[in-house]
Amino acid sequence: MWFVLLINCPANNFFFYFFIVDLNGKVIEGDLNPSSDTPTHLVLYKNFPDILGIVHTHSPWAVSFAQAGICIPAAGTTHGDYFYGDIPVTPKMTKDEIVTDYEKQTGDVIVKTFKDNSINPNDMPGVLVNDHGPFTWGTDPKNAVHNAVVLEEVAKIAYHSLQLNSHNIRMDQTLLDKHFKRKHGKNAYYGQNNK
Amino acid sequence: MWFVLLINCPANNFFFYFFIVDLNGKVIEGDLNPSSDTPTHLVLYKNFPDILGIVHTHSPWAVSFAQAGICIPAAGTTHGDYFYGDIPVTPKMTKDEIVTDYEKQTGDVIVKTFKDNSINPNDMPGVLVNDHGPFTWGTDPKNAVHNAVVLEEVAKIAYHSLQLNSHNIRMDQTLLDKHFKRKHGKNAYYGQNNK
Amino acid sequence: MWFVLLINCPANNFFFYFFIVDLNGKVIEGDLNPSSDTPTHLVLYKNFPDILGIVHTHSPWAVSFAQAGICIPAAGTTHGDYFYGDIPVTPKMTKDEIVTDYEKQTGDVIVKTFKDNSINPNDMPGVLVNDHGPFTWGTDPKNAVHNAVVLEEVAKIAYHSLQLNSHNIRMDQTLLDKHFKRKHGKNAYYGQNNK
Amino acid sequence: MWFVLLINCPANNFFFYFFIVDLNGKVIEGDLNPSSDTPTHLVLYKNFPDILGIVHTHSPWAVSFAQAGICIPAAGTTHGDYFYGDIPVTPKMTKDEIVTDYEKQTGDVIVKTFKDNSINPNDMPGVLVNDHGPFTWGTDPKNAVHNAVVLEEVAKIAYHSLQLNSHNIRMDQTLLDKHFKRKHGKNAYYGQNNK
Repeated sequence: MWFVLLINCPANNFFFYFFIVDLNGKVIEGDLNPSSDTPTHLVLYKNFPDILGIVHTHSPWAVSFAQAGICIPAAGTTHGDYFYGDIPVTPKMTKDEIVTDYEKQTGDVIVKTFKDNSINPNDMPGVLVNDHGPFTWGTDPKNAVHNAVVLEEVAKIAYHSLQLNSHNIRMDQTLLDKHFKRKHGKNAYYGQNNK
Repeated sequence: MWFVLLINCPANNFFFYFFIVDLNGKVIEGDLNPSSDTPTHLVLYKNFPDILGIVHTHSPWAVSFAQAGICIPAAGTTHGDYFYGDIPVTPKMTKDEIVTDYEKQTGDVIVKTFKDNSINPNDMPGVLVNDHGPFTWGTDPKNAVHNAVVLEEVAKIAYHSLQLNSHNIRMDQTLLDKHFKRKHGKNAYYGQNNK
Repeated sequence: MWFVLLINCPANNFFFYFFIVDLNGKVIEGDLNPSSDTPTHLVLYKNFPDILGIVHTHSPWAVSFAQAGICIPAAGTTHGDYFYGDIPVTPKMTKDEIVTDYEKQTGDVIVKTFKDNSINPNDMPGVLVNDHGPFTWGTDPKNAVHNAVVLEEVAKIAYHSLQLNSHNIRMDQTLLDKHFKRKHGKNAYYGQNNK
Repeated sequence: MWFVLLINCPANNFFFYFFIVDLNGKVIEGDLNPSSDTPTHLVLYKNFPDILGIVHTHSPWAVSFAQAGICIPAAGTTHGDYFYGDIPVTPKMTKDEIVTDYEKQTGDVIVKTFKDNSINPNDMPGVLVNDHGPFTWGTDPKNAVHNAVVLEEVAKIAYHSLQLNSHNIRMDQTLLDKHFKRKHGKNAYYGQNNK
């Protein structure tokens, strides 16, 4: 199993650290200790069985929403091509969750947010941890990175749409269904495949 | 006839796919199937007879206005040099338009917006599809790309002007006439041609 | 006499066209016709006798203020190091000014703005033409370009300060005096000259 | 003792000038006179005994807050990883402070802000001087530069969070404690050290 940990330094340089651990966090391959964030990832892998890559960044537009404590609204087709609905934000973590096993509890609060709101992680490959930032995942590490980049872009666009129109910028459910499902699932048809 | 399809990926990389189809969508040249967006383009070519290139992007400032469902106001001479009035936004597409022949109906809603508002596509080489993003066109593919870049720039500037002054940022009609017509049409004189 | 015309295309590419004209607009050197904006420049050279370079751009932050019709407030020392007070915006041009000799009248409205408000162009090397964009000038062409770049930067910063605090972001006159005069005029002392 | 003076020109080019002075400002090494800002730095070195590098920039997001006269709120973990609380803004300098020994008084107003608010400069390696801009410091010159870059990034993110949610974007104290202290001090554990 691969963990892909993407560390987004403030000056927009990207550093990647790769290592392999098993689902108990034991290092199988790699010269460094695993990231301190490893327990968060383990919780997600155990609870979201179809994902095969996780990315955590502090990308600035996504963090802006996380710090404001609001979800990224599904405001248009750019969003709907990748995320099937609003990108959720977790509740603020409690004092107990922060003080004890903080990194594991960060994973737990993500999983609880998805369960409480009946969100399918395969249709919603990302989340904002409140006052912290985004986690994304995917069908493989590259897809998880791709979703991190798209999440940042849709956060940026949604921010500006909200400044232009603070009422009701959400897209209609029919349009969201159309865009998400023409790219995902068994009836997908969008693209330019070889003839 | 050339179709120029510009795919603007979220990370601001631009990929171009070229292929040739006839006005019924049959591929004349190219190794890939035509874009799924081809039916939209066909509608525009059939209804806007003077255009010879179409570009569709998800450029972020233009999409911000599309998601907000508001037009890009003609707020200054940068805009007026290229677009003769507000850049229109289409109405939201209806459930029927989305479910049946969505890509063709996207073209239809653009054409209807221009007809209903008596807008000449030769003087207004772009539009925002509601909750989606911009389409631009031009006298040739390069001109269509150029208009896509300018539309994104005037969207960005108009956004900031609206934040500074939410009342009445539109330019006077006389100034719009002056700037558009000194660059376009039979009385154009602006530039630095060879002596 | 040099004219420096800086054309700022929407995609942030800068093209420079150099040519030499006399104060009546007759070309002394250069293969192209002078810019259509030449009459504006001639008015400024005739009325602001100490300037030896003029730059006109459509740089986006400055244009955002010009389209909003508001001046760039002197909000901090970055501004006060270069511009001795708010960077003025001209009144909207009248229908007559636009229809007849537009480019010359653009110069006239700048000069009138400075005279009506008793602004010294040597202490205020820039202006926003309403609904249009910035003109800057300087002690030589390079200085005029430098002032165009600084004006764009202080516009960007002032925009964000205004969003954070819409009341009273202007700096105190004493601080403005200190910063402008430690860099300009006979009592200037700021810098790192050779020992 | 090293002074690291980072001059951030408006076009985002960074120029570094290095020279060595003693704590009275006498140049020990370097071909240029020390920066006019040297007296500010001397005050900080004398009053904040653990710092070994100081950086002053006019980075635009930080200056936006300084011009607005408001602190950068501790709104999330990106901030809390580096700055233990709101990044303070000094009061506006008085007329007397500006007219007499301005550069030295700039240092004094920073030190007074920290003393009056019982802020430990080792836990808060930066400040905004009102209507001016940021100063940062650190355990060595590189660390001071790093803190200047992070301060600019957290200012940018906080700006956008404040536009999205103007109420209460501050993080909980428990979360701030967790993030600052897992990276700083004797109980720090965060990172990926060699096994």
